[in-house]
Amino acid sequence: MNSDLTNSPVWRALSNKAQNVSKLQNLFAHNESRAKNLTFALNDEFFIDFSKQQIDSATLDQLIHLAQQQDVEKWRDAMFAGDAINFTENRAVLHVALRGQSDDDYSVQGKPVMSDVLAIRERIIDFATRVREGHWRGATGQRIKTVINIGIGGSALGPELVVRSLRAFQDGPDVRFLANIDPADLSHTLAQLDPATTLFIIASKTFTTQETMTNAKAARRWLIAALGKEAVGQHFVAASTNQAEVEAFGIKSQNMFPYWDWVGGRFSVWASVGLSVILAVGPENFLAFLDGARDMDVHFRTASPAQNLPVLMALFGIWNRNFLNRSSLAILPYSEDLQRLPLFLQQLEMESNGKSINREGQEITYPTCPVVFGQPGTNGQHAFHQQLHQGPEVVPCDIIIALTAHPQDEERAPGQHRQLVANALAQAAALMSGRQHAQPERSFPGNRPSTMIVMEALTPRNLGRLVALYEHKVAVQGWIWEVNSFDQFGVELGKELANALLNNTATDFDSSTLALFSQLDHLSRAA
Amino acid sequence: MNSDLTNSPVWRALSNKAQNVSKLQNLFAHNESRAKNLTFALNDEFFIDFSKQQIDSATLDQLIHLAQQQDVEKWRDAMFAGDAINFTENRAVLHVALRGQSDDDYSVQGKPVMSDVLAIRERIIDFATRVREGHWRGATGQRIKTVINIGIGGSALGPELVVRSLRAFQDGPDVRFLANIDPADLSHTLAQLDPATTLFIIASKTFTTQETMTNAKAARRWLIAALGKEAVGQHFVAASTNQAEVEAFGIKSQNMFPYWDWVGGRFSVWASVGLSVILAVGPENFLAFLDGARDMDVHFRTASPAQNLPVLMALFGIWNRNFLNRSSLAILPYSEDLQRLPLFLQQLEMESNGKSINREGQEITYPTCPVVFGQPGTNGQHAFHQQLHQGPEVVPCDIIIALTAHPQDEERAPGQHRQLVANALAQAAALMSGRQHAQPERSFPGNRPSTMIVMEALTPRNLGRLVALYEHKVAVQGWIWEVNSFDQFGVELGKELANALLNNTATDFDSSTLALFSQLDHLSRAA
Repeated sequence: MNSDLTNSPVWRALSNKAQNVSKLQNLFAHNESRAKNLTFALNDEFFIDFSKQQIDSATLDQLIHLAQQQDVEKWRDAMFAGDAINFTENRAVLHVALRGQSDDDYSVQGKPVMSDVLAIRERIIDFATRVREGHWRGATGQRIKTVINIGIGGSALGPELVVRSLRAFQDGPDVRFLANIDPADLSHTLAQLDPATTLFIIASKTFTTQETMTNAKAARRWLIAALGKEAVGQHFVAASTNQAEVEAFGIKSQNMFPYWDWVGGRFSVWASVGLSVILAVGPENFLAFLDGARDMDVHFRTASPAQNLPVLMALFGIWNRNFLNRSSLAILPYSEDLQRLPLFLQQLEMESNGKSINREGQEITYPTCPVVFGQPGTNGQHAFHQQLHQGPEVVPCDIIIALTAHPQDEERAPGQHRQLVANALAQAAALMSGRQHAQPERSFPGNRPSTMIVMEALTPRNLGRLVALYEHKVAVQGWIWEVNSFDQFGVELGKELANALLNNTATDFDSSTLALFSQLDHLSRAA
Repeated sequence: MNSDLTNSPVWRALSNKAQNVSKLQNLFAHNESRAKNLTFALNDEFFIDFSKQQIDSATLDQLIHLAQQQDVEKWRDAMFAGDAINFTENRAVLHVALRGQSDDDYSVQGKPVMSDVLAIRERIIDFATRVREGHWRGATGQRIKTVINIGIGGSALGPELVVRSLRAFQDGPDVRFLANIDPADLSHTLAQLDPATTLFIIASKTFTTQETMTNAKAARRWLIAALGKEAVGQHFVAASTNQAEVEAFGIKSQNMFPYWDWVGGRFSVWASVGLSVILAVGPENFLAFLDGARDMDVHFRTASPAQNLPVLMALFGIWNRNFLNRSSLAILPYSEDLQRLPLFLQQLEMESNGKSINREGQEITYPTCPVVFGQPGTNGQHAFHQQLHQGPEVVPCDIIIALTAHPQDEERAPGQHRQLVANALAQAAALMSGRQHAQPERSFPGNRPSTMIVMEALTPRNLGRLVALYEHKVAVQGWIWEVNSFDQFGVELGKELANALLNNTATDFDSSTLALFSQLDHLSRAA
């Protein structure tokens, strides 16, 4: 069933426009100021050039009407007000408070939260500082050299993105991530580690996540075998709220760093799950990362839709997805530091909006989230970009650049960063302009859209702005599509069926699953 | 323009079938032997269960007719015969010879190639063995501890896949990969390295690839600064065919390992670009990897279409892409060792078949390659699998499992591998069966297809089988779609425009590109 959405006049007007949309090449040809008109800035250090999106100003106006019709501003304000906009779970969605400052007045259902937020922030900074400065040491008195964050999904992808993206700023211990229940992940993570200098962070809000607890117990066995049971408390801390289980594991309650039910896993890097980030890059860089997100929060909360970066980004995405029928979105950071951004956004976008049930509990039939994928440029240019340029179907691209290199990288390899960014610009130009050639296989159709997200440099603050930009973009799209972007019930069934298989509690599996499981069990027992 | 393909009776019959396709749940309900009938084996160690593809036996018969109509067997035989099936570049496509043995009789345009292949294979094995055994040493007499493969695209993704996938078998030096022109990649790769114990492999067939040569020169500067110019020959070797440039770089010709114009970059790991693999895991494991691919080659060359794993895989893919209109393909290896498989296949599939020009030089309008993406399970279950289960659009999945763990991983974490694989089976079952629930957001539609690729263990030989399976699958799809899977002209325009920007040789860029490049240049000069 289609909701009223697709029958609304503005949706129909947009559908009509999509039938007669001008080619990008023509949109540029007839408008000298197009780039200027379609570039929107947070400030001098952070701006977005949307001019290579296949859109004219009348269509953009209609899209802004769509946002208004869908009450985007009302939902946004409800989010900032701490209302329970995660309506299936009756929870507030207030990760913006996690980058708040003492004079911000966020509250959840009337209860102010900033004092709790600031208290936990102080505790994780204090703990990380003690480790970084060598006041917190391992059980044998040695300094911590390696930190292993054991967590999966939102408890891994956020901190892994940030630690990797800020590796040029890293001055603390080596930080690694252990997520998968695959024993190979554990085995290769623990190999070459010295228990005496290793600190584990167990990141699981409930302290019951199957993968995380299985790996945590294996890590504890490994540590106990080397240092004895009494060493556990000195080598394990937790980002969790389940005090009873955390203590039963052997972690003292003062080393448990909680967060709140209004913080979804995919937004938890701003809270206690950010501990590994602080250990790696220090409090100052972590706070700058928070400040950057707060810059974007303030902008998102106050800018008009026509100037609002997350709103505009959401609308161009909806134009591509629902009207031009583009089923995927390529994330192309021209930055090895941002290598994990496509993976992080794959979760953020697809877990948030990969849904088909609207607020009325009806099944919707229009497309929602595209498939999100990508790799850093220039690597992808020598691989899947072939399809972006010449495949029968158009793949919109988000290209992310920093105009300047880190000074130490520029020094090591002078001029390479300029080549890197020139390649990014050339990809966008090639996708847009195309080229006619006498040999058909050397022709490029062009008319392929991209958005250019530009930072002056990849600093902690700009990284915070970038992540918050996408968070709010995804929220806006969910509000327009009328889905709940903040639950994730789609992960449940697989989990249940895995347990049913492992515990032999269900017999109505299909013949394929039963045959394969029987072979698995046969070989597992033989091993 | 559509070719005759979409007007052919078999294509129309398949289109009709797609209108009335039974749900997967029903296909299982009415056929007790479905899993058995749709499982096809290379041997006991390697098989594929296609039963969770939404297809009945009459449709599969039609698809096999489609393969016959499109002359798949003829093209396959032409490939094995060394004909110039890469017709835009007038080249043979004979990577199968790279895993050939002395009694195989591959030839290119009448000229036998196996003696050359075996001679180069012997040379790379000999070189790697000398390094591994400490006979080849750095300029100061120290053993080589770290190998850096400098290469991009096919000169990186193949060896990186294999080295990572076989890390449980690694007994040689540490092997790392440097690809991106981003100076951060160089900077972080060289940091912490000791020039005296580092060996660089420059992997570029032409020895002119911009990224590779820029990084190679920077690495040479770094080495010379530490060890002097005369050390270069002892620390650099090449997988290349450009002898003049290789020697000018400072590499002796006996340390240049060539390959041939009938080996595309994305197939070069089987040739000299596999050098880093041999260094990491040794000749025996590399040869087993080749043997596995040869197993699949023999199977592909001899099995009837109805039993032929790559042909069947190609056909199910075409069913999903062209008839059920599925625009993406998720690659889900339940294996951290196979972490890089999705990335490798993204290149293999999208660079090979992300094309719209058919053999007659006409533009085709039917879809070709889907967007290929993925991540290892169970990690993805806590991220983008939400969309696989509950998104409005169906994403077919290839799930890859090894029934047993590496012994050392099983010992370190007993039972975890069984949990890993149970999760894989449960995902496939959940995608297929779905679940009704009183709360709509907890309902799963089911009827979502997956293919289960099963290995007894992730050995070098099974890895070879797996990679060759996908290589041949991609070739079959290209033959059916009537595109040339073996060129990659789509990478050219971006490269040209980047050079035009950097060298100021073109003035007709759009206003957006010019404005951004001017800012880049302004900041680059300020730096």
